[in-house]
Order: sequence, then C-alpha cells, then structure tokens
Amino acid sequence: MASSAAAIVFSYSPFRSSPIQNHHVTRYAPGSSSVVSFNRRRASRRGLVAVKSALIEPDGGKLMDLVVEESRRRAMKREAETVPVRIKLSRVDLEWVHVLSEGWASPLKGFMRQSEFLQTLHFNSIRLEDGSVVNMSVPIVLAIDDDQKFRIGDSNRVTLVDSVGNPIAILTDIEIYKHPKEERIARTWGTTARGLPYAEEAITKAGNWLIGGDLQVLEPIKYNDGLDRFRQSPSQLREEFTRRGADAVFAFQLRNPVHNGHALLMTDTRRRLLEMGYKNPVLLLNPLGGFTKADDVPLSWRMRQHEKVLEDGVLDPETTVVSIFPCPMHYAGPTEVQWHAKARINAGANFYIVGRDPAGMGHPMEKRDLYDADHGKKVLSMAPGLERLNILPFKVAAYDTTQGKMAFFDPSRSQDFLFISGTKMRGLAKKKENPPDGFMCPSGWKVLVDYYDSLSAESGNGRVSEAVVSA
Amino acid sequence: MASSAAAIVFSYSPFRSSPIQNHHVTRYAPGSSSVVSFNRRRASRRGLVAVKSALIEPDGGKLMDLVVEESRRRAMKREAETVPVRIKLSRVDLEWVHVLSEGWASPLKGFMRQSEFLQTLHFNSIRLEDGSVVNMSVPIVLAIDDDQKFRIGDSNRVTLVDSVGNPIAILTDIEIYKHPKEERIARTWGTTARGLPYAEEAITKAGNWLIGGDLQVLEPIKYNDGLDRFRQSPSQLREEFTRRGADAVFAFQLRNPVHNGHALLMTDTRRRLLEMGYKNPVLLLNPLGGFTKADDVPLSWRMRQHEKVLEDGVLDPETTVVSIFPCPMHYAGPTEVQWHAKARINAGANFYIVGRDPAGMGHPMEKRDLYDADHGKKVLSMAPGLERLNILPFKVAAYDTTQGKMAFFDPSRSQDFLFISGTKMRGLAKKKENPPDGFMCPSGWKVLVDYYDSLSAESGNGRVSEAVVSA
Repeated sequence: MASSAAAIVFSYSPFRSSPIQNHHVTRYAPGSSSVVSFNRRRASRRGLVAVKSALIEPDGGKLMDLVVEESRRRAMKREAETVPVRIKLSRVDLEWVHVLSEGWASPLKGFMRQSEFLQTLHFNSIRLEDGSVVNMSVPIVLAIDDDQKFRIGDSNRVTLVDSVGNPIAILTDIEIYKHPKEERIARTWGTTARGLPYAEEAITKAGNWLIGGDLQVLEPIKYNDGLDRFRQSPSQLREEFTRRGADAVFAFQLRNPVHNGHALLMTDTRRRLLEMGYKNPVLLLNPLGGFTKADDVPLSWRMRQHEKVLEDGVLDPETTVVSIFPCPMHYAGPTEVQWHAKARINAGANFYIVGRDPAGMGHPMEKRDLYDADHGKKVLSMAPGLERLNILPFKVAAYDTTQGKMAFFDPSRSQDFLFISGTKMRGLAKKKENPPDGFMCPSGWKVLVDYYDSLSAESGNGRVSEAVVSA
Repeated sequence: MASSAAAIVFSYSPFRSSPIQNHHVTRYAPGSSSVVSFNRRRASRRGLVAVKSALIEPDGGKLMDLVVEESRRRAMKREAETVPVRIKLSRVDLEWVHVLSEGWASPLKGFMRQSEFLQTLHFNSIRLEDGSVVNMSVPIVLAIDDDQKFRIGDSNRVTLVDSVGNPIAILTDIEIYKHPKEERIARTWGTTARGLPYAEEAITKAGNWLIGGDLQVLEPIKYNDGLDRFRQSPSQLREEFTRRGADAVFAFQLRNPVHNGHALLMTDTRRRLLEMGYKNPVLLLNPLGGFTKADDVPLSWRMRQHEKVLEDGVLDPETTVVSIFPCPMHYAGPTEVQWHAKARINAGANFYIVGRDPAGMGHPMEKRDLYDADHGKKVLSMAPGLERLNILPFKVAAYDTTQGKMAFFDPSRSQDFLFISGTKMRGLAKKKENPPDGFMCPSGWKVLVDYYDSLSAESGNGRVSEAVVSA
C-alpha cells in the first residue's frame, strides 16, 4: 500500500493543488479568505462587540435549523394533532429527523424528495438552484408502506410521531415515490449481499414507498439517556469553536474506543497544523451516536471510555471538543465517508482526518473486507462538493515493540510492529487480558473490560447493558 | 405517469432555466454563442474559404483521436511487435478500443486508470485538471487475469492484439489495479442479479485486475462486414453536419428496428426545432453497433431495416444522418443513458431525445422492469457534465386505431390506443403476421420477417444469421 508508507499527506487529490482550482479550495495556509485567523482577545481589545465567525461556511451558505422557534411551538403542536395521518418513526428514522433538524445535512430541509434521492444515488451530490453543487452521498429518506400511502391520499402533510405516539414533527409539501430497495442498496453499498446491518435494520423490511418533504420539528430531539449534554448541534459546535478562537477545526469521526494510535494521529495532526502557521487548531472528536451494528461497543460505554482518555491527558481537553454525531451508521465505506465529512463541514470543520477503510466492514457473505482499504480516502479526495474541505489522509499507526508505544508504522522495520485489530482488542477485553503497555490508557481499557463483563453477566437474558453516565 | 401526458417538453430539469445557470447552458434559441447559425452558401458568397464549425464543443474542448497518424504507423507497428507482453482483446474490448480511438469518450485517452474508474462508479463524472467536470457514467476498462498481471511485472506498456493475434494498439503508462467486480456491477446497474447480459459477457468471467493507460491505436478499427461505411467517427459526423449546414443536431440512440412511432417523434422534434427558429436541424440516427443481448435484432438486419425506412420516405434523407455507434450495450438504464448522451455531444449533437426507460430491460430475475421508466430522463436531466446538452424527453407514441397510424398517446381517450411492445412486435414478425397498417413501412417490416425466417431456417445449427448488406 503505497500511501501507508508516506507521512501524513495534506492533500491526496492530484487536482487539489492545481492553480485553476484554487479559487474553489480552502487553502492550507492560514489567512486565506475562508480560514481567517480569529483572535478573540484582540477583537475585544479593539472594542468590537459582535464578532463574525471565520469558520468554514455551511453547505449552501446557511446552516439549516428545522426546529420550530420557541414562540411558535405550542401552536405547532396543536396543529400537529390536527393532521389526519400520523407516521410512526423507527429509531433510525428518529435519528435522521435529529440529523436533519440540526442542519448536519444542510442545505436539506427535510427528507429527500425524488430528485434529491436520485442525485444522491447516481452522483453522490445535489445541484442547488443557483447551480452550485453540494456533496450528498447517503440517501436520507423516510419509508412508508402501501397502507400508509393509501391513508395519506391527497394530503400534503403528515405528522411524524415517536414510538409511543408523541408528535415529533410535521412533514409538509410531501412527495411520495417508489422505494427501489434493491437499487438503493446496490448503489449505496456496491453490493446487495444479505447481512448489511443498516439495510437489514432500515431498508429491507421498510415500506415500498418513500415520502419526502419539508420538516418542521416541534422541539429539539432529546434521548434522556444521560448523554444529551454531549449532543451538541452544528450551531452549538460553531459557537464553541468561535468561543475558543479556533483558526482551524479538524474533525475525527469514530465509532470505536479511542486507543493511543488514534491519539497519536490527532496530536500529530495538531502539531502539523501549528507548523503550517495556524495558531489554534481545535479537534472535533465526534463519535457517531446513532444505530451501530450489534458487535460494536455501545455509545454509552464509548463515551465513558472517551472521558477517561481525556481525563488521562492522552488528548488535551483545552484543544479538543468531544461531542456526539447523532447519526445512524451505514457501514457504506467510500460512499458513507463523504457524508461523514460533509456533515462536519456543517459543524464548522475545515480539515477532515481519514484513515484506512473508513466506514468499512467485513463483507457480510465473503471472507474479505467489503471495500478496498484505500478507496475511501481516494473517493473522498475526489468527491464533488467537498472541494473546500482539506482531506488529511494518514498512515497506519501500530504498536512499536521497540518503543513500547503506538507509533506510525515504518515498513522498513515491519517486524517491530504489532497490529492490534478491533477484533483482537475486543477479544483481549473479553478475556480480561491487558493489551501491551501504551496501547490504551489503563482507565480507558478498564471501561472496555467492564463493558464485556457486563455483557457476559447479562448474557443469560440477551440484553445488552448500557453504561450509566454521571451527569 | 405525469410526464407522458405532457407534450414534448424541451427541458426537464427545474435547474435548466435558472438564470444563474444560463452561462453553463446551451440556450434553446438559435444564435446563442455555442449554436451559431451556419449558412454555408452565404459564407461562400462572401468568399470565405475556411469555415469554422459552429457545432457544440467536444467534452474537454478537444475531440480525441487515438489512431496513430499515417506517417508513423509502420514504425509503431514494428514497435508493437517488440513489446514483450501481448493482451488478447475480446470482442467487447475491441469495441471499446474502437469507441476510445475515435473520441466518443473524449477526453479519455485510453482505458480508465483507477481514479477515473472510481469517479465513474461514484459520481458518474470525472473532474479534469482544470477543475471542470465531464460526464462519464459507464466504466471503460480493460480486465486482465492474475497470470497476465504477473507477466507484465514492471513493464509500463503492453500490446493489445485481436482474436487472431494481430496487433491493434499499444497501451502505455499503464496502471494495474483491482477489478472489484461485484461493486462495479452493483454501482453500474443498481443490482447484482445474475443474468445481466453485459456482466455475463464481459465482467463476471473477466480477470481480477484492470489495466488502465493511454491508447495508441495502430490503424482505424474495421470489421469488414459490409457495414464499415456506416461507421462514421465523431470527427466524420462533425464534418458531415458542417457540410450540411446544420444549425442544430438532434441525436436519437436506438438498438431496435425503427417503427413509425419513432419516426413521428423524430419528425416532430425537427418541426419543433424549426418552430424555435433553427433553420436546419439535422437528425443523427445513431443505432448502437456493438454487443447486444441475444434476443435483440442483430445490427446487420437493423441497418437493412433502417435503409428501407429512409428509402420509404418515412424519414427525410436530406435531414437525416444514419450512422453506427460502435459501442457495446450495457442495458444499465439511467446510468447508461448518460453515456449515450455524452458520446453524442462528442459527435456534435446538442439535442438529445430521450424516451421511456432508456437503455432499460426486464429484471433478469424478477417479473418487472429493472428500472423505473421515468428515472432515465430524470437522471439524464440532472447529470453532471451534461448541462450543455438540451434534453428532449418525449411522450409515448402508440397506434391510434381511430386514425390508423402511430400518434402521441392521448390519455383522455386511452381506449383508442394500441401499445405494440418490442416483444409483441417480435412475436408478430416471427409468426409472419402483419402489424396494423401504419405501424411500420411494409418494406421495413419485411426485413424483420426475413430475419426471423432466417433464424427458424437455421435454428437447427444454433447460428444466428447476419443479413448481407449490399455495398
């Protein structure tokens, strides 16, 4: 793998450095028009009151906020009760309402209508009315069945309710169109093999129709699971980055426990951004919080583990914002990594770290990975609508037995390195064995051991336990 | 189907008429910068000698011509003999060499390298070094097997040879990368069902590697089947349109016999273009000449049928250019129709007629069409890199029993119309029955009856006979 031998390369695509393209591209050097260095103290010394944020612009120019403003909520809730047809949202549907409501998918204003759906499937991007293009690689759609379609009839709106019937949102100006399940799966995953976790959870058994429209969400989505305080919206994250005076925001998407290899990568990225002249690069550590497959570590345990990593000083809390990305996971590799990156533009990130086989998994039917490990970063670097984002591919970190710590893999002395895969890590934690010193901070490792402990303790009743997070 | 009720609509996409986009878009009105009215006689009266063609620009600005110029052919052929590794081209491979060599796929200079392949699969388009985007929806790739890859080793070129070992081309600056067959099929067709004709012919049994590189084709591709005179290259077609003084070129892709419904559509399109102010719209009737599935009517018989239709005056030879598009057929619906349209831009067409379910077929495993009949024209109208092309969707033509001829379907009196599907048409011709008067000119119908006659006469030896075309 040629790229694994290179140091962190701050631009994968051959086109990124082309002079003709530069007007589209956020430059790496600080001080360019879209990454203006922002110094809060200096601004206040000059007596400025309102400070304009210098963060990257959201897709489409405006961050969507689909939650009804507070003064209108009472009236809208009454209205929601009067809409004749109510559609019950699944857990995954609700997560998408959450994602849409906070503008992670800006400029989408609701579940996709057919033209957006088709552009997503075929082009991984959507053309806006002004002719500009935004990236959009994963369909954000709501399925209904034949009976629901029949009941909707000629109505132009429906009320969306949660599992116990509480109104969550009104979907207006609706458009109903066929749900081509096989085609959706094939074009999103590049396979139709049985056993794709998201497809089994949310597509195969879903209805034969899709319903698009504009969302009006009745109030901010909350889960009351002790983790809501970690669920900062793109708007809140942008405020936080501005408050911290960030002049670069680099995002790291993850759905696994953080080990010291990840930490090495993130601190090394910050070091390099400082070398490039940025004064205050801030890390957005943005674990995915929605649906994940059964053998991934549940969110609550991951959040406890991330807390320990920060407490332990492996990552610097001063320059790290940990927040949950409330989105379900597709495991759609090169297609999904574009969505992961695009959503973080909307949260204010202008640098995106991408590793080996992002959003990948094993092929559900064959003994191989579903995606080529290099396709994710290649596709991401060439993706339409992401030209403004700086892609940071990184080489593989592994356990360096000569140093007794995680280090970037050096192929010239490959025998010195130990690769500890997710499977291996989980196996060790299950058996309460320790990984080599320096693989993960001991307090973080203990969380994992506790998690698998809780699983085996409860394996009799089939329930997966959730960690309780202190508020 | 809403659109079937509309008259021919000269712009499907809501974005096409947006004022901000207009600088990208070839306007419908004649006299715009890219469709300048060209009058040859007037030009010669003014004493001009060299006349600049006003046809639409090829993709990337330059029509590729990968055939080695005549003065260098002898030397190149000698060189081809010295290249150590020779790759034997299949029939479909050779058709792609033909397509590439004449610039139908401009700006491609040869079989795709990985970055082009990935962009094609994920974005149906390729970004050029100057930042502009061209449409490219179908992978144009060459597969090799493990043994061939091993033999190539570190070489940077291979010679491509035909089925009997004659050198056809040299592929230089080669890049070898994995052939992800399942993913390629899933992303191109939106299914992985067994029985897709192109996949069975050219992918499933092909090698596990793809080899990209620049093509140098040793001489123009010829088949010596009596039809080469109908195989005009994009460059020859452009010359022909210029010679005829065309101020608009509208392309019609087909792989079936022409019936009077097609003819109605083509003549009606010309009438409308005249109404819009064009002085001399010319039709490019461009039947596909490469690989087709077993139950399609073979090219030689179709060409005989097309000749009869022109002789019969159903189409006006003065304003019609019939020429073979030397490309194999994918039957990949909304994905492939983009390629069909894009290739015709390179041949000089600035209008493209698109019907119901273009490039579609029945699902190979289920009792339904593989694609939604409307997706093709919707996807085509939104496709990146095709903004310059005017898409002409049309409503369905059917046999109007009250008029005794093919007419545009009028849903308000649907009982008057008879739909004669391809299957039904083939069934009638096989049984030597006649379709209703006015469905197809009798001489054209006779060609079909003769074809099925020849099949049943030879059904004993399993050979599909080819019509002999008089030179």
